[in-house]
Amino acid sequence: MNFRSDNTAGASEKVLAALIAANGGAQAAYGADELTKRVERAFCELFEREVAAFLVVSGTAANSLALSCVTPPWGAILCHDESHVVRDECGAPEFFSGGARLIGLPGIGCKLAPETVATHLARLPEGSVHSSQPAALSVTQATEAGTIYSLQELAALAEIAHARSLAVHMDGARFANALVMLGCTPAEMSWKSGVDVLSFGATKNGCLAAEAVIFFDKEMSRDLPFRRKRSGHTISKGRLIAAQMLAYLEDGHWLDLARRANKAAERLEHVLLSVPGVRIGWKRQANEVFALIPHAVHERLRAADAVYHPWSPEWLPPTAKPRPGETLYRFVTSFRTSFSEIEALGAAGQAEPSGARRVKIRRR
Amino acid sequence: MNFRSDNTAGASEKVLAALIAANGGAQAAYGADELTKRVERAFCELFEREVAAFLVVSGTAANSLALSCVTPPWGAILCHDESHVVRDECGAPEFFSGGARLIGLPGIGCKLAPETVATHLARLPEGSVHSSQPAALSVTQATEAGTIYSLQELAALAEIAHARSLAVHMDGARFANALVMLGCTPAEMSWKSGVDVLSFGATKNGCLAAEAVIFFDKEMSRDLPFRRKRSGHTISKGRLIAAQMLAYLEDGHWLDLARRANKAAERLEHVLLSVPGVRIGWKRQANEVFALIPHAVHERLRAADAVYHPWSPEWLPPTAKPRPGETLYRFVTSFRTSFSEIEALGAAGQAEPSGARRVKIRRR
Amino acid sequence: MNFRSDNTAGASEKVLAALIAANGGAQAAYGADELTKRVERAFCELFEREVAAFLVVSGTAANSLALSCVTPPWGAILCHDESHVVRDECGAPEFFSGGARLIGLPGIGCKLAPETVATHLARLPEGSVHSSQPAALSVTQATEAGTIYSLQELAALAEIAHARSLAVHMDGARFANALVMLGCTPAEMSWKSGVDVLSFGATKNGCLAAEAVIFFDKEMSRDLPFRRKRSGHTISKGRLIAAQMLAYLEDGHWLDLARRANKAAERLEHVLLSVPGVRIGWKRQANEVFALIPHAVHERLRAADAVYHPWSPEWLPPTAKPRPGETLYRFVTSFRTSFSEIEALGAAGQAEPSGARRVKIRRR
Amino acid sequence: MNFRSDNTAGASEKVLAALIAANGGAQAAYGADELTKRVERAFCELFEREVAAFLVVSGTAANSLALSCVTPPWGAILCHDESHVVRDECGAPEFFSGGARLIGLPGIGCKLAPETVATHLARLPEGSVHSSQPAALSVTQATEAGTIYSLQELAALAEIAHARSLAVHMDGARFANALVMLGCTPAEMSWKSGVDVLSFGATKNGCLAAEAVIFFDKEMSRDLPFRRKRSGHTISKGRLIAAQMLAYLEDGHWLDLARRANKAAERLEHVLLSVPGVRIGWKRQANEVFALIPHAVHERLRAADAVYHPWSPEWLPPTAKPRPGETLYRFVTSFRTSFSEIEALGAAGQAEPSGARRVKIRRR
Repeated sequence: MNFRSDNTAGASEKVLAALIAANGGAQAAYGADELTKRVERAFCELFEREVAAFLVVSGTAANSLALSCVTPPWGAILCHDESHVVRDECGAPEFFSGGARLIGLPGIGCKLAPETVATHLARLPEGSVHSSQPAALSVTQATEAGTIYSLQELAALAEIAHARSLAVHMDGARFANALVMLGCTPAEMSWKSGVDVLSFGATKNGCLAAEAVIFFDKEMSRDLPFRRKRSGHTISKGRLIAAQMLAYLEDGHWLDLARRANKAAERLEHVLLSVPGVRIGWKRQANEVFALIPHAVHERLRAADAVYHPWSPEWLPPTAKPRPGETLYRFVTSFRTSFSEIEALGAAGQAEPSGARRVKIRRR
Repeated sequence: MNFRSDNTAGASEKVLAALIAANGGAQAAYGADELTKRVERAFCELFEREVAAFLVVSGTAANSLALSCVTPPWGAILCHDESHVVRDECGAPEFFSGGARLIGLPGIGCKLAPETVATHLARLPEGSVHSSQPAALSVTQATEAGTIYSLQELAALAEIAHARSLAVHMDGARFANALVMLGCTPAEMSWKSGVDVLSFGATKNGCLAAEAVIFFDKEMSRDLPFRRKRSGHTISKGRLIAAQMLAYLEDGHWLDLARRANKAAERLEHVLLSVPGVRIGWKRQANEVFALIPHAVHERLRAADAVYHPWSPEWLPPTAKPRPGETLYRFVTSFRTSFSEIEALGAAGQAEPSGARRVKIRRR
Repeated sequence: MNFRSDNTAGASEKVLAALIAANGGAQAAYGADELTKRVERAFCELFEREVAAFLVVSGTAANSLALSCVTPPWGAILCHDESHVVRDECGAPEFFSGGARLIGLPGIGCKLAPETVATHLARLPEGSVHSSQPAALSVTQATEAGTIYSLQELAALAEIAHARSLAVHMDGARFANALVMLGCTPAEMSWKSGVDVLSFGATKNGCLAAEAVIFFDKEMSRDLPFRRKRSGHTISKGRLIAAQMLAYLEDGHWLDLARRANKAAERLEHVLLSVPGVRIGWKRQANEVFALIPHAVHERLRAADAVYHPWSPEWLPPTAKPRPGETLYRFVTSFRTSFSEIEALGAAGQAEPSGARRVKIRRR
Repeated sequence: MNFRSDNTAGASEKVLAALIAANGGAQAAYGADELTKRVERAFCELFEREVAAFLVVSGTAANSLALSCVTPPWGAILCHDESHVVRDECGAPEFFSGGARLIGLPGIGCKLAPETVATHLARLPEGSVHSSQPAALSVTQATEAGTIYSLQELAALAEIAHARSLAVHMDGARFANALVMLGCTPAEMSWKSGVDVLSFGATKNGCLAAEAVIFFDKEMSRDLPFRRKRSGHTISKGRLIAAQMLAYLEDGHWLDLARRANKAAERLEHVLLSVPGVRIGWKRQANEVFALIPHAVHERLRAADAVYHPWSPEWLPPTAKPRPGETLYRFVTSFRTSFSEIEALGAAGQAEPSGARRVKIRRR
């Protein structure tokens, strides 16, 4: 019962098969191969316009490369205070950009409100040489809290950003999970809502290691090939990354995988809420469930070998703040999560009838 | 007939099988998994001592991360002028180190002579705040010319470096090919010869994307986990890199692959030299053949769809400088290169009997 | 009536005279001169211990060089959200450190409370490769609000920092103004209170352009000479910086200048408070007065050509938040500020008797 | 008898007087003052066109800021192998540019020949992501060997650079000395010869600490204000730098100072050559004399307290290579060098009549 992250699964069967198929023969190295060209075309089709697409092997690389193309070293990048770029990348955006600054802003459910961004921007004097210069707004879709911006919310944020000439970056590590929830097109959830550059995640949702940086304005991507090479992310056997991505995109495979993960999370939320004492932190939207769990329930889950992470309660809505004895935990599902695992989790969470504990211990 | 690079092949069957096997189940992300721990132990055994080993997906990342741990931003890294770190990484060592300087030194056959290093070091005043501070010596084994340093040569270079407190880095993108040629142990060709940190290449010799940075002094590696994460090279599904490396190292598989590639190059050298007019640039030692090829022969090879790269004649020995009508070309073999491809190349290079050209054109 | 900054004055007569005297003859360049050596000794005496002292020409350089010696590129520097290093240096600490992160913390009167630092540190997991690593705490004395940490407060902050192995940096752009207010020794307000490295300001208080970075642990300063040279701050005619600093320190000249500035501010506070409607933002402690000024008063002051800056009310105590019609302004005095200027400001602020306005206009 | 450098003198009387005059009153800080504006206009007049001029306090800052505006982090800067930017700035250009690479090229007399630049450029593939991208050519006028490019030579170099879209930077630490020798206008020796950005030196020739970065294309300078601030080079009491530069430029003062220094060097060359056994390394053109001095003569000069630097013979013309017993030394004159010092040097160099040595020793 591993609900730690969607990173704990491997690749989907289809993606793995494509990798195996691509392994034979000789192909040009460093992304000059046929499969890489096909991926580039696939992204143009997917987004219904010309895009510049670049494959890399990690979300951190995708985010940092994307941001480094839209901010000077003295630039400031506005984002949510809990976002991956601020909290979980060991300063990668600073490294890739040559020292730009990340400004973490508050927001319930890890979502940025347009007024929060507007207020903060108003405090940063335009063009004053003493200040870092606002250069980009980075939003995460789905967010670190598993919440999702509506298309209207995205557009409102982008409008504020663009009015001050900030580029809009979307960290789409869970782009697919958000997309199937919103039920819109990739174009609608990106450039049609004002996104300038997208980190298109695929690793969490079924690839081994494959992400793409997608620029909707090719001019903006001019430096990327140099930045990618210079950071060691121009993989020599590039076709093996391309093969994964092609299979991932083909015939809506990526959307199927995301739907599976979301459905598992939906069931997980239901099952968790059926355990007495468990409350929800944020309403589930994608493939993550955040639950406030009483200590005794947590003990039972752990005893049953369930694994999942505690989470910061900082951005919970006021009504959902942890009460004494409760802790906020994150449960993540992936395309691989089975319903039987979920049911087992639910069963383990229920108060044990007498004797049950003995049985469990024996099982181990 | 692709002799462009050992990067054009995919993974070996064994490596691919291991990857497939590791794909199932759930495993901790970001290198906290079991397979990664096993790789670390495997490297300790391989090198007959405690080492700190870190997996990455590209040789550029391995080299730059290694160098960034042994040079301050104001440091200078001495290396051969033709080395990969200077010529082929778009300034990655400068990026990772925060602006250190690469100093390319001359040397026949892309090998550094101890006196060249000593002379250059003598020109760099010690401790003067006006100068970049010599911090590391980087040698490539096998070199970009496919030549190999003997253990004595390595030790002599390391002695000079260590006398000025420089760290010794080895770019071992073709470590295996050099090792099987020298017939010594990994320990002998690295730390026993004075190497402090090694880029242990596996991608060119049978992995999809797997390299390791090996520190023989753990203290030297203290910063590496942060530098790796910060550069986007801490792969989330890290077990899939580890699985490749484990299979690569297991039962001497990596040495078998290298022997196969070297043997193919040996045959290729023989076959090329049997073509009238073809001369050798540097004596083949590993899996690369550098040949001076008359224009007419080159035309015939190209017409037969053979692919290979022209190469700079700068570091040829005086006796092997290209004569009018000759060009220096590089041919690389891999574990996948078949003897029939080699024979076909040889046949294509031979002067055609009348009528042959017509036949070939028809074939296309 | 210029109350914009203590940067608007030139040098004191004594400092200027010393500069003139040092101008003749030939002296070794780049800080190898006699005067520079004398400054180094003077700082050892001043701080009653061995210190490593390095002269530079700007506070931004002093702060950034100091911080870059105590944080790795993936380090985090905790400081007040309003501090100069965060707000007014265009990302210089990020630049000099190779991309470290500044974390601005809240605090009334621009002062950090120990518990604020402790709480934030507790949120940053120790040693996790995903997070920036807390490396330094930077405090400003006197603060941007002109407030002053007591020795006990400094020691409490340093204790928390040192417990997590953070270095303590003090931005002492107004070190002298704070010192004469506290009436303690330089040693007490620095290393005896736990400060590891100090930006010792002199420009605002009587020099043309002279600041010093003072390390109380020489080992910590090992890289500074290279960092200083590499950033263009190793001035060729270094003796002319040294001459300023020597005169500044000699016979307590620096303390006299600071006392003069503080006394002017004391008077200014009194005069401003005597204007009906004016309230104080923070209690004056050094040479800065922050006043909440009604619009009509402000209009009269501006009409009389008084210059001063509006200031962010963010860190005002709850009891002093601006009421409708009030704005927070900063008034800074220097050693040059004359009492007659202050009285003129007070007079201008008073409600005008009929006819007064006409007179003023005529004067212009 | 100090011939070590033109950095050993202080400021000229006129420059010092201007500094003293500017010291009074209150002025806007950080370069927003009146004097700074006047300097900007003065440079426009001097160069007979619109320029963007930025004051800094060191030549290293001027060079590095200039170069950082014309090269991306993955750029390469071509320059002479002996140039200050490569040899004497501890990697400052790498630091300011975020890791660009300096490529030192050979050339007799520290001058670059057009064909050397052209040949090297031809070796750097255009647009290949694997290579650093040629971005700038940096020439030094007068060079480190005191030699001077003719206008034709400058134009020829610039033509080659511009053909590959490289920006042309001139390190003019001794711009004045070169200018009075060539007898041309500042415009002719800069933008009319193809220079895009100039480090205009004034410190060595009569200022305390004042240099300017001059852009002939304002667009190119767009980032400079941020880069300057961020590197700690936006001096708070900026008017005191401006005052120096204004006095320096006024009424041709700077040219008078340079003529004086050059004339002293002319005399020095004559005097040195009159000492038996002394030979010239490079023909003197500006204010530096490079002489091959027999050991015995050197001993006599040192005994007489003459100070001057040994110099690398690497770029001497073949005909002037040091013979056994000779060493190459550099003698630099400044506007302050007196003819009596020069005569004393000459006298000291002459073989001593018997008894002379005793007298000298007594003198000490």
